[in-house]
Amino acid sequence: MEETQVRFVIPASEAESMAQKANLPSVLHLLPSLVPSAQRLARPPISNFHVGAVGIGGVSGRVFLGVNVEFLNLPLNYSIHAEQFLLTNLSLNAEPSLSHFAVSAAPCGHCRQFYQELRNASSLNVLVADSDPPTAFTPLSHFLPHRFGPENLLSKHLPFLLEPHHNGLSFLTNSQPNGFTTTTNNFDSLRYAALDAANKSHAPYSGCPSGVALIDTDGNIHKGSYAESAAYNPSIGPAQAALVAYIANGGGHGYEKIVAAVLVEMESAIVKQEHAARLLLQTISPKCEFKVFLCVGGTKRPSSI
Amino acid sequence: MEETQVRFVIPASEAESMAQKANLPSVLHLLPSLVPSAQRLARPPISNFHVGAVGIGGVSGRVFLGVNVEFLNLPLNYSIHAEQFLLTNLSLNAEPSLSHFAVSAAPCGHCRQFYQELRNASSLNVLVADSDPPTAFTPLSHFLPHRFGPENLLSKHLPFLLEPHHNGLSFLTNSQPNGFTTTTNNFDSLRYAALDAANKSHAPYSGCPSGVALIDTDGNIHKGSYAESAAYNPSIGPAQAALVAYIANGGGHGYEKIVAAVLVEMESAIVKQEHAARLLLQTISPKCEFKVFLCVGGTKRPSSI
Ligand SMILES: [Zn+2]
Ligand SMILES: [Zn+2]
Repeated sequence: MEETQVRFVIPASEAESMAQKANLPSVLHLLPSLVPSAQRLARPPISNFHVGAVGIGGVSGRVFLGVNVEFLNLPLNYSIHAEQFLLTNLSLNAEPSLSHFAVSAAPCGHCRQFYQELRNASSLNVLVADSDPPTAFTPLSHFLPHRFGPENLLSKHLPFLLEPHHNGLSFLTNSQPNGFTTTTNNFDSLRYAALDAANKSHAPYSGCPSGVALIDTDGNIHKGSYAESAAYNPSIGPAQAALVAYIANGGGHGYEKIVAAVLVEMESAIVKQEHAARLLLQTISPKCEFKVFLCVGGTKRPSSI
Repeated sequence: MEETQVRFVIPASEAESMAQKANLPSVLHLLPSLVPSAQRLARPPISNFHVGAVGIGGVSGRVFLGVNVEFLNLPLNYSIHAEQFLLTNLSLNAEPSLSHFAVSAAPCGHCRQFYQELRNASSLNVLVADSDPPTAFTPLSHFLPHRFGPENLLSKHLPFLLEPHHNGLSFLTNSQPNGFTTTTNNFDSLRYAALDAANKSHAPYSGCPSGVALIDTDGNIHKGSYAESAAYNPSIGPAQAALVAYIANGGGHGYEKIVAAVLVEMESAIVKQEHAARLLLQTISPKCEFKVFLCVGGTKRPSSI
């Protein structure tokens, strides 16, 4: 496969023909062979340890890539693991489930925990590509026995991560950016994109959904939804999620092309993303203008759509 | 046991006599019985889910408590899990190993990963107290098969988490607080305490050790050392570690008693704690004065002492 063909989402039909050309019996067998291509797209300036994860959407059959992303000059907790990138990539492409994924190295405990947010967490199949000999696909439950997850805290009738839902958020009347006095007109498309991301956010534990939208120098908008973990710390922040979109949508560009960003979060939020999101975005793109718009509504327990 | 007896470190002789009084065959059997007392000391204003962990030092036989700590108005990634608190408590009391611990609920994946930093991670014994029936002590390897940890990245001759070491850091000549112009005299004891904490920091992966020292309204100083995870995200920041010391040393006071804090980190650090540490401390104690002093020296691979 040529390097120029590597993208972060591969249509089902194309994945099928890639598998056929490589004489592989199915797309499942293609996943591990794409891991090295994913690894080359990783952005780990601290560890220089390139991780790639490649999964197949449970509904569309599309193939999704994930890579690890580390950020210089910030704490390591701001990093995005390849497995988190993969799920975020499914989320931003509205893929409601993941059935199988291959990953270059055994998932760390933090990622095994984050994956508990999926309804099929126990039966989700994982293949560790760097094992010698390579492992077969193995259920995630094997990697995290005595799991703690959404079932312990939420009703099973509520949407899990990736499942379609709408948080019912809207802007405060006369909403003004928090701490900014400029007119908001130039930010209208960005703030509605961030509101849309916040409405897709998975925040059943805190009841504090949020979303970020970025705009780059080409005028492209990249949206990211906050996704919460039942164990709290493995949650992926809205700015991280938007950077996943930027990397997955873009052509390998640097972060300095990100010129403005909007965060939408709830006026009543007890889990606030504002300062951490600003810190991340202005560290990687110092000239990035950053605004916050507050919203209301929403239910602690979002409804399915 | 009376509530007033509950402290975060129990001397070995006292633990022995507590076990005898309770007709328990050993201190190991005492650990699960102390879990509810630990849970009452937790500070989870977001989840209201109280987690307690109680462990025994492998060398001294002292008993250590850990509790979960959550912070309002910050992302969930800033939280401290009870198991992380427990290890940090051992670290600040110079206990070089942990042999057994009991915890109120099964450790999450993030904590299972953080515990891989211990040399005896595979054989460390864990008892989950809320299981019905309660489990026996079970090796941690059972909870995280196909582990990824220090052995994959570091020489076995290097100090692991909790093992004594000194990072060889010293202040820059004419060191001035980063971004502050006041005289540093009042901060001398704090900055040397923070340097000491940085010298005990476990940062073999990034080579960027750091430490924080806090001072409260009673003039007590509380030190915390940054402790890194091979998987990055489960790392515990230096401000979090200092708050563990504040909670473990203190009498249940609020954070508003913390009036000043110093962070020491390396001038050349590519993993910087400054902004995240300031954000945490000034969110929980808005009047806390926060200064940063830069240091040099240190080796990417610290030596044992
Ligand atoms: Zn991971
Ligand atoms: Zn945990």
